[in-house]
Amino acid sequence: MAGGNIEERKVVESREWYLAAYAPKGVPTSDHLKLRSVPLSLAADSIPDGHVAVESLLISVDPYQRTRMTGLDEGLYFPQFNLNEVISAFAVGRVIRSKDSNYKEGDIVLNPFFPVAEYIVVPSAAFIRKVDPVSGVPLPDYLSSLATGELFGDPKPGSNVFISAAAGAVGMYAGQLAKLKGCRVVGSTGSDEKVKLVKEEFGYDDAFNYNKETDFDSALSKYFPDGIDIYFDNVGGKMLESVLNHVNKHARIPVCGMISDYKKIWTEREGVRNLLNMVGKEVRIEGFLVGSYLDRFGDFAKEMESYIKEGKINSKHKIYRGIESYLESLGSIFTSANSGKVIIEVKV
Amino acid sequence: MAGGNIEERKVVESREWYLAAYAPKGVPTSDHLKLRSVPLSLAADSIPDGHVAVESLLISVDPYQRTRMTGLDEGLYFPQFNLNEVISAFAVGRVIRSKDSNYKEGDIVLNPFFPVAEYIVVPSAAFIRKVDPVSGVPLPDYLSSLATGELFGDPKPGSNVFISAAAGAVGMYAGQLAKLKGCRVVGSTGSDEKVKLVKEEFGYDDAFNYNKETDFDSALSKYFPDGIDIYFDNVGGKMLESVLNHVNKHARIPVCGMISDYKKIWTEREGVRNLLNMVGKEVRIEGFLVGSYLDRFGDFAKEMESYIKEGKINSKHKIYRGIESYLESLGSIFTSANSGKVIIEVKV
Repeated sequence: MAGGNIEERKVVESREWYLAAYAPKGVPTSDHLKLRSVPLSLAADSIPDGHVAVESLLISVDPYQRTRMTGLDEGLYFPQFNLNEVISAFAVGRVIRSKDSNYKEGDIVLNPFFPVAEYIVVPSAAFIRKVDPVSGVPLPDYLSSLATGELFGDPKPGSNVFISAAAGAVGMYAGQLAKLKGCRVVGSTGSDEKVKLVKEEFGYDDAFNYNKETDFDSALSKYFPDGIDIYFDNVGGKMLESVLNHVNKHARIPVCGMISDYKKIWTEREGVRNLLNMVGKEVRIEGFLVGSYLDRFGDFAKEMESYIKEGKINSKHKIYRGIESYLESLGSIFTSANSGKVIIEVKV
Repeated sequence: MAGGNIEERKVVESREWYLAAYAPKGVPTSDHLKLRSVPLSLAADSIPDGHVAVESLLISVDPYQRTRMTGLDEGLYFPQFNLNEVISAFAVGRVIRSKDSNYKEGDIVLNPFFPVAEYIVVPSAAFIRKVDPVSGVPLPDYLSSLATGELFGDPKPGSNVFISAAAGAVGMYAGQLAKLKGCRVVGSTGSDEKVKLVKEEFGYDDAFNYNKETDFDSALSKYFPDGIDIYFDNVGGKMLESVLNHVNKHARIPVCGMISDYKKIWTEREGVRNLLNMVGKEVRIEGFLVGSYLDRFGDFAKEMESYIKEGKINSKHKIYRGIESYLESLGSIFTSANSGKVIIEVKV
């Protein structure tokens, strides 16, 4: 946006991304996602009671967002974005005006459905949680590590843990937390470079490249001779099916995304055919949404703080600068070359 | 078996069912399952320490047993029966000799993997639990209602509960327990007679015939305008997939069997393609085995006792007489005509 102190201006030109056309197949391009600039009044008297004006700091770029841009019936995941309306994403912002006594200027807020815009005016009640920044935990880690701790519960030391998308935004934290809790951790990822990354930087016991070891059943037999106790599923589809052939009694499968499913609408996907194994092994599969755990964010941030300060958790972020990079950054996460968390730094 | 008082005889002729050939397709016939008579010594000095001799009273005839007779790789459900060895089933028996001080003659015992034989001698430690018969709860109800209570947890009154195989051995209890806990309960079943049965005898709020209403998505839209909170899955496959298009936030899906999957080996089944809905709605699917809850059997029997005595739970059993009826009874449960629990009464 144009320069100048925000305090001095009443109306800003806020750039925002909107969906001009649905992309039923393939990753959205500039035909589908477009940037526009809209004037937004930040004058105190133009902000309704119970609302806050927020400037975006960081925007999380997540694979699932693609499912909201297809225009197709995607079942019960998130609803489609409306054409010509600003899209939304998980983001961190800073309050710059407040008409709610619970919020004051400078407060840092989280919102899982934050408009992908430089400035927004929103009801403070909906989807916004305040964060007390913990010294030593970089904001990008706030964004990307939130749900991970919640999903594991308390794994027994020695548990055999498998993480798919092991070098990805969620996998990298999941694997390291499992290691910290005394588990044996093996990951799958899409390139030899990322196999190296998760073993050397994230401390996984082992990892394999699913583009090379394409017989997942054989791979899991090799890497899990004692079976799998926890599968942290980021992928779904064929990998989940193979895992269900290697689960131990009472295995748990937290799922916070299924990237292999985002490429097709559900009726065109290959289904999981061996759910019956869940009965014989008394397995639990459970879906999780980050947005449901915002209330516990503070506790988790404190746990992460100690780990990060002691150098026990490494993270890898691909930072894009400026809101204009949204389209490019979204495309990047659907290539095997991507690793770590993709974040847009809107404002430093 | 031949007549005469068991107390007076040292050796009995015990009839038992064994698998003469695997049945990879179709329901097993007399080509696959055969009855034979074997002599068994019940002399006290022929029973090893830590073993008990038991006479069979009731044998449960369950759909999943078919999956143990195919000779095919069925994944991680129960292992295949060995050819020419006696098969096993969930059963209730009475101790007639004991070489374990924890058991005495006359004790009633449960065993989820009880040889399908008139008399057996088994280690008391493995798979056997003692039951204190509760007056007023018929033994058939012991057999068939065990797992049901455990699976529900504590459903909120007003929850929308869907039960597949609603007139079946497990469904009939599940539906009635859900009603007693204040839920709205709808079932699916395979004939108009059974729709009538579950509504009139078991008190379901509504029910539909899945052989007539074959568009499950439309049926569930009609019967669950407010969505599904709990799905008690006995079926798997397409019905589970349709349910996942109608689940509410935090829906729970306990699974204790998947009868639609027993007809095909897993690689030939149509898979469930919309597990991604579990993420968006934070759904939990969890497998349960009756055999894992034997320790809590007493508590559940007490709960059931009061319900049954007050006439709040109805049950329907199809009782076959004599161990020779095993093959016929097994075939019966794979027809739409079957309802309720199929049990063999070996001894009155």
